[in-house]
Amino acid sequence: MDLLSEFDQRDFERVGRELHGFAAELFPICRSITGDGLRKTLAMIQERIPLQLSEVPSGTQVFDWAVPNEWNIRDGYIKVPGGERVVDFQKFNLHVLNYSVPVRSTMTLSELKPHLFTIPEHPDWIPYRTSYYQENWGFCLSHRQMLALEEREYEVVIDSSLEAGHLTYGEFYLPGQSTDEVLISCHACHPSLANDNLSGLTVATFLARLLAGKELRYSYRFLFVPGTIGAITWLAQNEKTVANIRHGLVLTCLGDSGPFHYKKSRRGNATIDRVAAHVLHHHGEGAQILEFSPNGYDERQYCSPGFNLAVGCLMRSVWGSFPEYHSSADSLEFIKPEKLAGSLQICTAIIHVLENNCRYRNLNPFCEPQLGRRNLYGSAGGNSPGTEVHARLWVLNLSDGEHSLLDIAEQSGLPFSVIQQAAAALLQGELLERIPESDQDFSVHAGFPHESAQRHN
Amino acid sequence: MDLLSEFDQRDFERVGRELHGFAAELFPICRSITGDGLRKTLAMIQERIPLQLSEVPSGTQVFDWAVPNEWNIRDGYIKVPGGERVVDFQKFNLHVLNYSVPVRSTMTLSELKPHLFTIPEHPDWIPYRTSYYQENWGFCLSHRQMLALEEREYEVVIDSSLEAGHLTYGEFYLPGQSTDEVLISCHACHPSLANDNLSGLTVATFLARLLAGKELRYSYRFLFVPGTIGAITWLAQNEKTVANIRHGLVLTCLGDSGPFHYKKSRRGNATIDRVAAHVLHHHGEGAQILEFSPNGYDERQYCSPGFNLAVGCLMRSVWGSFPEYHSSADSLEFIKPEKLAGSLQICTAIIHVLENNCRYRNLNPFCEPQLGRRNLYGSAGGNSPGTEVHARLWVLNLSDGEHSLLDIAEQSGLPFSVIQQAAAALLQGELLERIPESDQDFSVHAGFPHESAQRHN
Amino acid sequence: MDLLSEFDQRDFERVGRELHGFAAELFPICRSITGDGLRKTLAMIQERIPLQLSEVPSGTQVFDWAVPNEWNIRDGYIKVPGGERVVDFQKFNLHVLNYSVPVRSTMTLSELKPHLFTIPEHPDWIPYRTSYYQENWGFCLSHRQMLALEEREYEVVIDSSLEAGHLTYGEFYLPGQSTDEVLISCHACHPSLANDNLSGLTVATFLARLLAGKELRYSYRFLFVPGTIGAITWLAQNEKTVANIRHGLVLTCLGDSGPFHYKKSRRGNATIDRVAAHVLHHHGEGAQILEFSPNGYDERQYCSPGFNLAVGCLMRSVWGSFPEYHSSADSLEFIKPEKLAGSLQICTAIIHVLENNCRYRNLNPFCEPQLGRRNLYGSAGGNSPGTEVHARLWVLNLSDGEHSLLDIAEQSGLPFSVIQQAAAALLQGELLERIPESDQDFSVHAGFPHESAQRHN
Repeated sequence: MDLLSEFDQRDFERVGRELHGFAAELFPICRSITGDGLRKTLAMIQERIPLQLSEVPSGTQVFDWAVPNEWNIRDGYIKVPGGERVVDFQKFNLHVLNYSVPVRSTMTLSELKPHLFTIPEHPDWIPYRTSYYQENWGFCLSHRQMLALEEREYEVVIDSSLEAGHLTYGEFYLPGQSTDEVLISCHACHPSLANDNLSGLTVATFLARLLAGKELRYSYRFLFVPGTIGAITWLAQNEKTVANIRHGLVLTCLGDSGPFHYKKSRRGNATIDRVAAHVLHHHGEGAQILEFSPNGYDERQYCSPGFNLAVGCLMRSVWGSFPEYHSSADSLEFIKPEKLAGSLQICTAIIHVLENNCRYRNLNPFCEPQLGRRNLYGSAGGNSPGTEVHARLWVLNLSDGEHSLLDIAEQSGLPFSVIQQAAAALLQGELLERIPESDQDFSVHAGFPHESAQRHN
Repeated sequence: MDLLSEFDQRDFERVGRELHGFAAELFPICRSITGDGLRKTLAMIQERIPLQLSEVPSGTQVFDWAVPNEWNIRDGYIKVPGGERVVDFQKFNLHVLNYSVPVRSTMTLSELKPHLFTIPEHPDWIPYRTSYYQENWGFCLSHRQMLALEEREYEVVIDSSLEAGHLTYGEFYLPGQSTDEVLISCHACHPSLANDNLSGLTVATFLARLLAGKELRYSYRFLFVPGTIGAITWLAQNEKTVANIRHGLVLTCLGDSGPFHYKKSRRGNATIDRVAAHVLHHHGEGAQILEFSPNGYDERQYCSPGFNLAVGCLMRSVWGSFPEYHSSADSLEFIKPEKLAGSLQICTAIIHVLENNCRYRNLNPFCEPQLGRRNLYGSAGGNSPGTEVHARLWVLNLSDGEHSLLDIAEQSGLPFSVIQQAAAALLQGELLERIPESDQDFSVHAGFPHESAQRHN
Repeated sequence: MDLLSEFDQRDFERVGRELHGFAAELFPICRSITGDGLRKTLAMIQERIPLQLSEVPSGTQVFDWAVPNEWNIRDGYIKVPGGERVVDFQKFNLHVLNYSVPVRSTMTLSELKPHLFTIPEHPDWIPYRTSYYQENWGFCLSHRQMLALEEREYEVVIDSSLEAGHLTYGEFYLPGQSTDEVLISCHACHPSLANDNLSGLTVATFLARLLAGKELRYSYRFLFVPGTIGAITWLAQNEKTVANIRHGLVLTCLGDSGPFHYKKSRRGNATIDRVAAHVLHHHGEGAQILEFSPNGYDERQYCSPGFNLAVGCLMRSVWGSFPEYHSSADSLEFIKPEKLAGSLQICTAIIHVLENNCRYRNLNPFCEPQLGRRNLYGSAGGNSPGTEVHARLWVLNLSDGEHSLLDIAEQSGLPFSVIQQAAAALLQGELLERIPESDQDFSVHAGFPHESAQRHN
């Protein structure tokens, strides 16, 4: 499966425009961790990939948590009585504190102020705030807007509902030759914010389309879930499936102009960690590898000690570390078509390595085989061989049954694809044999297996 | 046992003055590896902590060594016959070569010179010299003093005795919940030298007072011994006790103004090595960790291959590396009250970690527990959690029964006390359980157990 | 066996002159991977050490290769018909493409040009080119020479033969106390090139002379083989012997003025790798350690995965990386007598460590033994001990049966010889015992033993 060539045949600029266009369609929807905005988002993804939706009733116990009541919102504003709206949800959905309970009242500015949220350091930006598990209501507005509010009475309305309903998530399962799975997860609960996390949603959707219909080694599971509670709910309801996960990526913040960051899984040396590091190393451009920490997105749940899955997190700028994070400045202009396309390319390159990594055995382990008579060597001796021959010598030297192509790529310093091509040429030259797939397992599920078994028997 | 808070409640400046005051009391005594100066020193420590004294007869075989004859000195001088003393033990006890045999003679300067020791590079300083195992006599004086001696006859008297007697050492045992021991050892054989090693003596004494009366996890053994022969004697006579030692520190050179240095035990990765490195890393101020070497103080004996104890050495400036070392410049002015108090604080911090390090088990290992409803999380979402929550997430994530609080502190980069507080909050929130003390052993005694057993059966 | 002192007693300058003189004698011979030039070279080495020669018939199957036909050459030139030779093998043997098939023809410059090889970047240098396994003929000349050729007809003659014959190699086996072997291998197939590889040939020859007649711990096997095919042939015909090889060095490019480079064996941490790194570290002068790669000289064969021998490669400048490589600029002036002698010295130092590395057991493992009463310590206490005592303390501290002298040298940072002398003094003082030779194995043969056995049964 040469996913890389497949990707490279595409028109990179067009891919970027399509990704950005999809993000632009999704942008206006008011998403939250439950409710119709989330459903509408998943439905739009479903137009592109055959997503299977699940509805989990409010109150369902999921590990230490319970699925919360469903939140929906129709309108919300602060209005001068008889006058115009000074803060208006219809204009921009960040204006209402996400998960605000309904309110309909008249109050003074002083009474209102504890419910107003601003970012004084960025007086023109509107913050994004939530209050999922503590009932509250509020408005988010620019600091300048707030300073302009006169000391008077205001009509304050949030036309929302917070009632028993469901939590919705979307799942796309792409079966491969093996039941071993690669998990691609992104959160789908942020309202009009582009980098966090429409970038993840769109890249994951396009990645799924790229893989669909291909003959794949691994099975792939794409999850579009509300952050935290969605991942917890999925894990709670799919513990048997979890045992199949061999590698995984959480995708987020993939559209901005920052360099790539890959945060390792809790294991720290899982295959996915090594693959991502390898791909980003050869990508260059200041890409950085971060150690695991228990802060972050849904890798927090996948890497909780009971699961300890080999799931890392791929980002460009790191969540929480760029000023636009969780504000109106995380707009459609903040994400760039070419950056989204580049992120899709890196995801493809990572999966390309996962799909193609394997071990071979050198059939002529005693001394080098004579590459020349097989047209695998430069014929006029006396010069140092080029990269192609160099890669072949590496593959021959390390194909002792112990080293995978990734091991060889790491040790030689050559890109995986060069090593892979060398192995292909040597295989064709009957100098290698492929070690049976059953011996190719590159990852083992760890964790608390006994407790896990007990818990659900 | 919150030793750190205990220490922090004290008046730091007053602690420093007390430490320096005790050093000043001990300073004038002429100590050696045996004799009444050593006894008097131990008696003064005994006024502060209930030291148990041992007297080991001269000639007692201790491993490859024999306890030497006991040395005592009453007077010593070089005198112009009928005139004044030009070098006078009564004025400063470094003037006599430590362990000088008696001499009473009249001789020319040329005859005297082979018995005179100076430091030409520091012409105003008086060196400290000893000759324990080779009978000799001599005088130490400033180079300037020596140059001023006229070529004439001198009356030379050392009124000392070197006879069968005893070697004395002091020991203070503080029982804890476990018979596992922490060893704190310092040498008590240097005469009027302040940093080396009245600083160690005083810090150890005050540390013992700080621990006395507390409910302790470990038992503590404080040793005040003459250097080398004292440690060897103690080890020879206490081989059964040695088997209980889990962690240990040799304390020396703790009063000068240099940055801290911790020299690792021979094991190199013992718990005490990691604890000291952790505490000093967060202390900052240029503290350095040194690899083990067989030079040094009594860690040489504790870390001999037959014992291989987990004993490191805590210093500020490294013995032998500062110009004042083993000279009259290592005076009471060379050690500072605040540096002594800071050293006591570091010792306390190290013991605090030893006392409180343990493993917990996360009772909700599958996904994060919901900290919010337990008031363990910031309630308004959308911001990155602060250090407190960060520490709790680290403790939850790594409390899989394998990682100790020290492991978590190291991996998170947070100070032990922050991690400890996080664990306490989570324990109170019933999110953790403490792993039984019997499974909390952080150190195993290694060495030559069979030979050791054979040797003394 | 104090090989180092033995070497140091020699006149370094004279050794250099002798090495260079031998290289000068060998220089004019037209060597190749078979033929009379190779035979003559081995015969000249045989005048210095009792080399045993082997003749392997053309067509003999050696692993994946076959011994090629034997090549001999008598003459070769390009001549203006009836005029003078413009390119003449008699003047310089690099002028003929090595392994050229016979040709005798008249042709235009255009017809001739595909058979001419030059180095445009170095217009005055003549390249060295070969075509062993693809029948071809050609001439190598300076770029300037080629540009001066007029467009006309030329008489073109190569008076060579390529016929069934033999491949010749030389072997010198020096038996030691153990059948465990140290392999010293160099290639002997390059014509008039000095650094690559007359430097290796001459240093290996002199090293063999230095070791001959000594009482040695290891047996030594010196191989003088044509590159690649010679090493493969030897390995194919000596698989039983291979099992005895414990350490090995390929010697090449040892006469130029560059700093030393040691390329590690495929194992990466074999004893020979550690020994070479230790010796070069203390040698200083910018010596560098290179990781294994499957490019290079005959270590490619010794380190093929089926053999995986502990064989590294010692060089000064790295083959292929200096401009003079494989050209007429790799002349007798390019190699320096003192550099050849220095290389011999480093080889001697490496073998000195292999011969003398061993483990001792401290007979007084509990506390330090009293060095003073054995005159092994400075008698006047109070000063930090010097390097000699320091080395003794290291040896005592680490001689627990686990650490070899090399381990101790590495850990202490002291040169092996200093550690070795310390051990000798302590052994004389009856403070150590030598661990029996049977427990001194520092290397184990790895590889594909079962396949190897199957393959040749």
